[in-house]
Amino acid sequence: MSTTNNLATVRAQIDELDEKIQNLITQRAGLATEVAQAKYAQETKPVFYRPEREVEVLRNVIARNKGPLSNETLTRIFREIMSDCLALQQPLKIAFLGPAGTYSQAAVYKHFGHAAQNIPLQTIEEVFREVEAQTANYGVVPVENSTEGGVNQTLDGFINTSLKICGEIELPIHHHLLANVDKVEQIQRIYSHQQSLAQCHHWLNSHLPQVERIAVNSNAEAARRAFNEAGTAAIAGQMAADIYQLRIIASRIEDNINNTTRFAVLGQQEIPPTGGDKTSLLLSTPNQPGALYDLLEPFAHNQVNMTRIESRPSRQGIWEYVFFVDIEGHIQDAPIVNALQTLAKYTGLIKHLGSYPRAIL
Amino acid sequence: MSTTNNLATVRAQIDELDEKIQNLITQRAGLATEVAQAKYAQETKPVFYRPEREVEVLRNVIARNKGPLSNETLTRIFREIMSDCLALQQPLKIAFLGPAGTYSQAAVYKHFGHAAQNIPLQTIEEVFREVEAQTANYGVVPVENSTEGGVNQTLDGFINTSLKICGEIELPIHHHLLANVDKVEQIQRIYSHQQSLAQCHHWLNSHLPQVERIAVNSNAEAARRAFNEAGTAAIAGQMAADIYQLRIIASRIEDNINNTTRFAVLGQQEIPPTGGDKTSLLLSTPNQPGALYDLLEPFAHNQVNMTRIESRPSRQGIWEYVFFVDIEGHIQDAPIVNALQTLAKYTGLIKHLGSYPRAIL
Repeated sequence: MSTTNNLATVRAQIDELDEKIQNLITQRAGLATEVAQAKYAQETKPVFYRPEREVEVLRNVIARNKGPLSNETLTRIFREIMSDCLALQQPLKIAFLGPAGTYSQAAVYKHFGHAAQNIPLQTIEEVFREVEAQTANYGVVPVENSTEGGVNQTLDGFINTSLKICGEIELPIHHHLLANVDKVEQIQRIYSHQQSLAQCHHWLNSHLPQVERIAVNSNAEAARRAFNEAGTAAIAGQMAADIYQLRIIASRIEDNINNTTRFAVLGQQEIPPTGGDKTSLLLSTPNQPGALYDLLEPFAHNQVNMTRIESRPSRQGIWEYVFFVDIEGHIQDAPIVNALQTLAKYTGLIKHLGSYPRAIL
Repeated sequence: MSTTNNLATVRAQIDELDEKIQNLITQRAGLATEVAQAKYAQETKPVFYRPEREVEVLRNVIARNKGPLSNETLTRIFREIMSDCLALQQPLKIAFLGPAGTYSQAAVYKHFGHAAQNIPLQTIEEVFREVEAQTANYGVVPVENSTEGGVNQTLDGFINTSLKICGEIELPIHHHLLANVDKVEQIQRIYSHQQSLAQCHHWLNSHLPQVERIAVNSNAEAARRAFNEAGTAAIAGQMAADIYQLRIIASRIEDNINNTTRFAVLGQQEIPPTGGDKTSLLLSTPNQPGALYDLLEPFAHNQVNMTRIESRPSRQGIWEYVFFVDIEGHIQDAPIVNALQTLAKYTGLIKHLGSYPRAIL
């Protein structure tokens, strides 16, 4: 059979598939509309976005996937379909730390799809405030290992907010050396955020040991300088390269190739258990010997796995330190209930920041 | 029946639909891989991206659509699915006039989906050059009614290039008044590209008649100035507002609400007829009385509908003017063949810039 015939046959098959796909997506949108109507009929302020439900859908997608499309591609397609169906009921407004083109925006797209409305803000505090004021439905803030800084502002935001963490987003972060030079030898200075400089420490030591490194506020600011000053380079991501039209001199120069930034989704909802959850807690303890040990013991005793602990000086004067603790499981799980009951004897403050589905990919 | 029961039933139905959707998308990707293998077996340099085929798929999608999802949403979903299937065979590299966040990038996403690789360049000339050098597979350049300027560079590019126009993209353009002021009264100056100022002429005259208007190179530049200078505003799009974190003081202030920019897709391919095509021609005529009339007569005589004509001074000295002509139909259509045969008697230059499917939405 000739290629042309073959091609015609395959295209006819693809047409049939497309018709079926479209029918099914249309049926799906119809069902979503039914759900909305049922909710409006029975609730005064219905909530349409259900993270626990989205994560279930995506976990099913991954469980079923046998290729050739990657899990990333398929979950992206289904995120978009869900995002579109949701927008029929209520287009979501998502606040995040701008400007556009940052990793935070990429995280918003990854989690909420392109049908959501973006609200880029100038500070992390504003993200908290806009979600608290319900000007935005949800907020996305970086929590750890951000290349843009901001982790501390997020942790400080958690201390005072009434919002709940209702999701997490993990985003792989790649750093590139960006400059508008013809030869690497022309680079006299490298700008970047101090975290990014640190994350590319080994690469810089072995490739550009003599070049001055200067820490600036953000990688976007570094790229802006590399754009304006001759003989300078920036370490930043693809988006900064695009925005400031800098050439990628060396790509993926981060020392740890699994470099990832974790974001929290802020909202007003408490999310029910999904069978694959994490819980974030804020704990504080008086400044006395053995206090931290007392804090950790109940988790270990109840076999609750702690994935992260981070301390921050308290600004409220009463407690010397507060601790941000992430554990595996949901606040309703028996081991966690037990651990928190014991913990209540030793600590002055236990604040449940949220229980939410683990990041999908 | 309670909402909860109802909801559980509907969700089970959605799960079934999702499983089917995923199966079908996976089958589609499998077929796309088969096509690729067949092509590799028979061609030395197979071309995987087929605009005439994509447009067929999308026209079918629109023809079948009875709601509730909009044609825009459904074509976006299918663009992404095609983009993902294509990326299994060959991830496309698309050059465009940067920086990222411009309307040109929005046009790239609209036409090629998010699986394509973006190459933002600093000038329209570079876009032509990178596609000619095959560093990029396709290029996207603004042709008319752009808010960013650049039309003339595109037309000049067409004169010398060996590339073909193999698609068009239409993008609705909305202008907003952007500023970081508390009250409109604080605005003393408004920056924007002269085309955008012109497009918002009536609105400005009725709302801010006393405020000075200053034309700058691009709307992005205008937004940058509004960000840096107190008491100034910019007229620009949503993306500029996001990037420079400016407040939208008044939205959609363009006088014509159907304001649209048209982009051309540049490539190496000649696209076969699809039944809904346009043809772009470059014609020239010696500077003598009645020359333009002679140029137009053969089209009218053969009932070829002309959608646009634009003249540019020739830089080659021989001809005073060159004319860019867009007509409805494909270069292989009999009326166009006849018109061009007649035209050849009167004009020194007929260059076929391309025949391509009309923009979908």
